[in-house]
Amino acid sequence: MAHLLSTSCSLKISSGHKSYHQPLNRVQIALPTSFTFQTSKSAFKRLVFQGDSRGKCCKVQANAVSASQEVSAQSNSGTHQSSNKPSKHQRVMVIGGDGYCGWATALHLSKKDYDVAIVDNLVRRLFDHQLGLDSLTPISSIHNRIRYTVKSFEPDAVVHFGEQRSAPYSMIDRSRAVFTRQNNVIGTLNVLFAIKEFREQCHLVKLGTMGEYGTPNIDIEEGYITITHNGRTDTLPYPKQASSFYHLSKVHDSHNIAFTCKAWGIRATDLNQGLVYGVRTEETSMHEELCNRFDYDGVFGTALNRFCVQAAVGHPLTVYGKGGQTRGYLDIRDTVQCVELAVANPPQPGEFRIFNQFTEQFSVNQLAALVTKAGEKLGLDVRTKSVPNPRVEAEEHHYNAKHTKLIELGLQPHLLSDSLLDSLLNFAIKFKDRVDEKQIMPNVSWRKIGVKPKTVKA
Amino acid sequence: MAHLLSTSCSLKISSGHKSYHQPLNRVQIALPTSFTFQTSKSAFKRLVFQGDSRGKCCKVQANAVSASQEVSAQSNSGTHQSSNKPSKHQRVMVIGGDGYCGWATALHLSKKDYDVAIVDNLVRRLFDHQLGLDSLTPISSIHNRIRYTVKSFEPDAVVHFGEQRSAPYSMIDRSRAVFTRQNNVIGTLNVLFAIKEFREQCHLVKLGTMGEYGTPNIDIEEGYITITHNGRTDTLPYPKQASSFYHLSKVHDSHNIAFTCKAWGIRATDLNQGLVYGVRTEETSMHEELCNRFDYDGVFGTALNRFCVQAAVGHPLTVYGKGGQTRGYLDIRDTVQCVELAVANPPQPGEFRIFNQFTEQFSVNQLAALVTKAGEKLGLDVRTKSVPNPRVEAEEHHYNAKHTKLIELGLQPHLLSDSLLDSLLNFAIKFKDRVDEKQIMPNVSWRKIGVKPKTVKA
Repeated sequence: MAHLLSTSCSLKISSGHKSYHQPLNRVQIALPTSFTFQTSKSAFKRLVFQGDSRGKCCKVQANAVSASQEVSAQSNSGTHQSSNKPSKHQRVMVIGGDGYCGWATALHLSKKDYDVAIVDNLVRRLFDHQLGLDSLTPISSIHNRIRYTVKSFEPDAVVHFGEQRSAPYSMIDRSRAVFTRQNNVIGTLNVLFAIKEFREQCHLVKLGTMGEYGTPNIDIEEGYITITHNGRTDTLPYPKQASSFYHLSKVHDSHNIAFTCKAWGIRATDLNQGLVYGVRTEETSMHEELCNRFDYDGVFGTALNRFCVQAAVGHPLTVYGKGGQTRGYLDIRDTVQCVELAVANPPQPGEFRIFNQFTEQFSVNQLAALVTKAGEKLGLDVRTKSVPNPRVEAEEHHYNAKHTKLIELGLQPHLLSDSLLDSLLNFAIKFKDRVDEKQIMPNVSWRKIGVKPKTVKA
Repeated sequence: MAHLLSTSCSLKISSGHKSYHQPLNRVQIALPTSFTFQTSKSAFKRLVFQGDSRGKCCKVQANAVSASQEVSAQSNSGTHQSSNKPSKHQRVMVIGGDGYCGWATALHLSKKDYDVAIVDNLVRRLFDHQLGLDSLTPISSIHNRIRYTVKSFEPDAVVHFGEQRSAPYSMIDRSRAVFTRQNNVIGTLNVLFAIKEFREQCHLVKLGTMGEYGTPNIDIEEGYITITHNGRTDTLPYPKQASSFYHLSKVHDSHNIAFTCKAWGIRATDLNQGLVYGVRTEETSMHEELCNRFDYDGVFGTALNRFCVQAAVGHPLTVYGKGGQTRGYLDIRDTVQCVELAVANPPQPGEFRIFNQFTEQFSVNQLAALVTKAGEKLGLDVRTKSVPNPRVEAEEHHYNAKHTKLIELGLQPHLLSDSLLDSLLNFAIKFKDRVDEKQIMPNVSWRKIGVKPKTVKA
């Protein structure tokens, strides 16, 4: 796994048609293993994705380059900057572009005429198969890949989704806590150094989380709060009270980015995202090969997605504790819209801009009630069960978080509607044969960390 | 360097006297290399330290145990808990006990009848000789050493000095920034997991820094601030604005410790320490072999110590920029006193207590004026020179930080007096032949990070 892949991927017809090389339209993908892509003849023209052999099957000829050969690889990399790209296109690198939000966002930006490069170490896929760390790509290769890619792709913006994003995963044991810290915090540090070294004017769009704030007993502002104290006033970073090693990694990222904006003049936007629900975006719906992932398990599943699956298979909706836990939520169609707005409206050099990225607040009990009502309309028998809360968190609390800055930039929210719930539930019903009910219950305890949960392999 | 050393060090007379094994009085030391200790026949009875062969020279027979042999090592480790230790002695582990503050504190606690174990990876000594990372002890061995030592020593308190503590060092380049993050943040994470796993009731006394707060335009409180906002009130962590990767690592530690106090019920004290000056404590003065280190260089030297050395050798006092930078300072005799007070007065389980550990505020210009005046009394010709500020920091700002909690616990401050300055200057004059003037000037720039400074080897 010490290999670095060139971002100058090219297409090569492999089914007897003439061979040719060309940049992969506007999407370039750096992946740690060779990968098969398939051209799409459908309405969606700019994007291709993994598929098996059919008709005009294409293979990406990714050039494996060892880290020690970086220099020669760099000298060859100019070829992808061919003249058939309109110079007006902004170049956006999407780190973690193979994940849930990252994939949808990469497609969306590509469709909006940005040149997109995806950088992803694919750990999210590996997590599904082996919940251990030994075989994961070592962090240094991420660093090398990012450095190299920043230098060769010359992005105008880097959208950074490339983090381990599950709070329960980070709380399994020490090795997962440390992995989360390494992958997320040191990974982001590497991104910052790469920008500083190779592309100072580049805009870093970083995915944070609303969970960084915790649940203070005062209103949550967007990143900063003005405090008057002993007769003096200052506007300071909003105090953070994260509640898992995952959430803490995002807090650390925010502090690190704030510092590099100040010390190095980097321009950055921190998107403190709420809980994302939904499957389909305009782009992922254009071809079945573009279908996005949908997690419902106790480790990676978010509440609303999981409730829909539970309703579909007749499993009680699992409310943790009292269910008064209130958070910000948003539709994945708004995730991609928010990122686009951030990219299209960069901050000034040296500015560290923070947006709260969600559209509505719900308590867990409110979500359960909504899914119950929608399920009953579809003839499902939906029950709710309170299970012991595996987390350490307030179950009844004040929660009022500002989220106006993205609206001011033009965000048009897709609020949670009956029809969206219908659609989500129908999605869950369509794929109900794929549901593994053993994965639904929470199996990681915040208090019993280090005790191996039954369903997680060491 | 994959070796783990047993903490059950023992003494063995090596000069023809009868051999015997006994616990190293009340101080046990875990070190990554074999080490020579010398018994002291002077007034200081409990402590021994490195020395060459003389009279009754003793060698520590440290048992090298590879990490894979951890289980068998643990089964042998009970021997050091022999019955000749009064059960009333509190057991304190000092992580980083080989460093400047750590060494003085370990001696002090030992003299105050605590049973002390030192855990140190000795990187601070290595930094002096080779400012590169390749040969440094990998972080995993620290983890193993700490886990093992926590389990076998069963401390009542862990005093954690074991962090890379230079802001300039952390700003040299990416590898030093990452090293600082790994050693400090993941090291502390390992300490927290070790406490959670083996010694939940143990009190973590963690060295933080006043630099975590930055220089806000409002008064700095001790860790928390009560905010009234939109008609509601809450007491929240004081906002942090750190200004180097080193300072950021301490901010991350504070967030991680706060979370584990809440989630796991750990009891912890975060000592946000100011800049430490001075050499001698009551204990380090008892024998020349106990002499503490004294840094004056551009990377590890703190302002007042460096100014005294500069005055002694006729080098202008180097004021960075305008010199209005104001910080909290304390005498190393107060460092050891503060740690003792924290250990002797533990917080409740689950409490995350934060003390600001300093006694007086000075601007850099004020310090330069004090050293100039004291130097002139000793007949020195002291000049001051403003040099371009290598850091990114406000050079004129409000600064008013609370520091009452340690006073309330009984701290009796050693304020900066003429006699202390005399003593410091005489110390510098005594050792002036050891001064390397090439090391004095700042050689790490906050803005030009990644550009190798001349005096730092890659």
